[in-house]
Amino acid sequence: MKKSIGSRIIVFPTPTWVVGTYDREGQPNVMTAAWGGVCCSRPPCVYVSLRKATYTHGNILRRRAFTINIPSEHYVTEADYFGIASGKEVPKLSVSGLTPVPSRLVDAPYVDEFPLNVECQVLHVIELGSHTQFVGHIIDVQADPSVLNENGLPEIERVNPIIYEPGNRRYYGIGSCLGQAFSIGKAAQSNQK
Amino acid sequence: MKKSIGSRIIVFPTPTWVVGTYDREGQPNVMTAAWGGVCCSRPPCVYVSLRKATYTHGNILRRRAFTINIPSEHYVTEADYFGIASGKEVPKLSVSGLTPVPSRLVDAPYVDEFPLNVECQVLHVIELGSHTQFVGHIIDVQADPSVLNENGLPEIERVNPIIYEPGNRRYYGIGSCLGQAFSIGKAAQSNQK
Repeated sequence: MKKSIGSRIIVFPTPTWVVGTYDREGQPNVMTAAWGGVCCSRPPCVYVSLRKATYTHGNILRRRAFTINIPSEHYVTEADYFGIASGKEVPKLSVSGLTPVPSRLVDAPYVDEFPLNVECQVLHVIELGSHTQFVGHIIDVQADPSVLNENGLPEIERVNPIIYEPGNRRYYGIGSCLGQAFSIGKAAQSNQK
Repeated sequence: MKKSIGSRIIVFPTPTWVVGTYDREGQPNVMTAAWGGVCCSRPPCVYVSLRKATYTHGNILRRRAFTINIPSEHYVTEADYFGIASGKEVPKLSVSGLTPVPSRLVDAPYVDEFPLNVECQVLHVIELGSHTQFVGHIIDVQADPSVLNENGLPEIERVNPIIYEPGNRRYYGIGSCLGQAFSIGKAAQSNQK
């Protein structure tokens, strides 16, 4: 018998993504967001949902661009810091010692030390309530060569992304491989009468 | 020096969620989706993005409701099967042997064996290209009592959700705890001049 725990945001997993933008003065800023994901395949789109009060919200509206930077678990302290401090008050990247690199394709900086950087141009701005959803068209992905496999694709086990746990508000790493998608389910299919 | 890998969907982590709906005849259907996430806090909203060709797409449009069912890694085979087969052709839940339970609050069924079930009413239907984004207002969350901690909150380590890896198309489990959010980053903050 299930137990009702109410109308609240308890879903797993959610990501730990660092959103890169330029502010009004052209200074690079970063903030951490867990309300993000993939929302379309063609065009390839990701989004982040942000509160209007965040510095990044205004930055994206003005520049119509952002990057999603995927920290490896080695940078979990920095990622958390980017979710605590505000770019209105402190230059978070300088404080952290991490390096902003200007994207050549979109009007936003990416974080050099993080193994994956997704460069996005804003396609849609959708007001949902407390949060604005910024849907970004993925223009390019920059990867550290050390995370790429023989097919030229990043391996999640080399990227070591961080998972956020809503509710208890903790960070987790990636566990072990459970199998190949669009493949292991064929066993269940064979039960079919 | 980063390597450009092009305009493609390579972001980590993405979820492995099983979407529950009723079809035209009132038969329960499930499909697996990785394009999903949280998109607003007030009202609490999650979304799934689906191709128009899926059976679930029409089901959600008609009933304006869906559930997100979070399988534990024990059910990774069933979750993969729900992403391979189509409800247009086979009654996937009967084939899998899993149990649909009618939600009391929304017009959709949930999967009893999965530890977390999120019951959603459709708030927005947003066309993004190949995919339609269905934004659902979380009306309630049903949890298996065994995954709840002393605060009444589900623990990700007890739910054992499945992570999907776009690109290489593999499933992964959850790894170890990396720290408390909005807390461990304070160390980086103290570097501030």
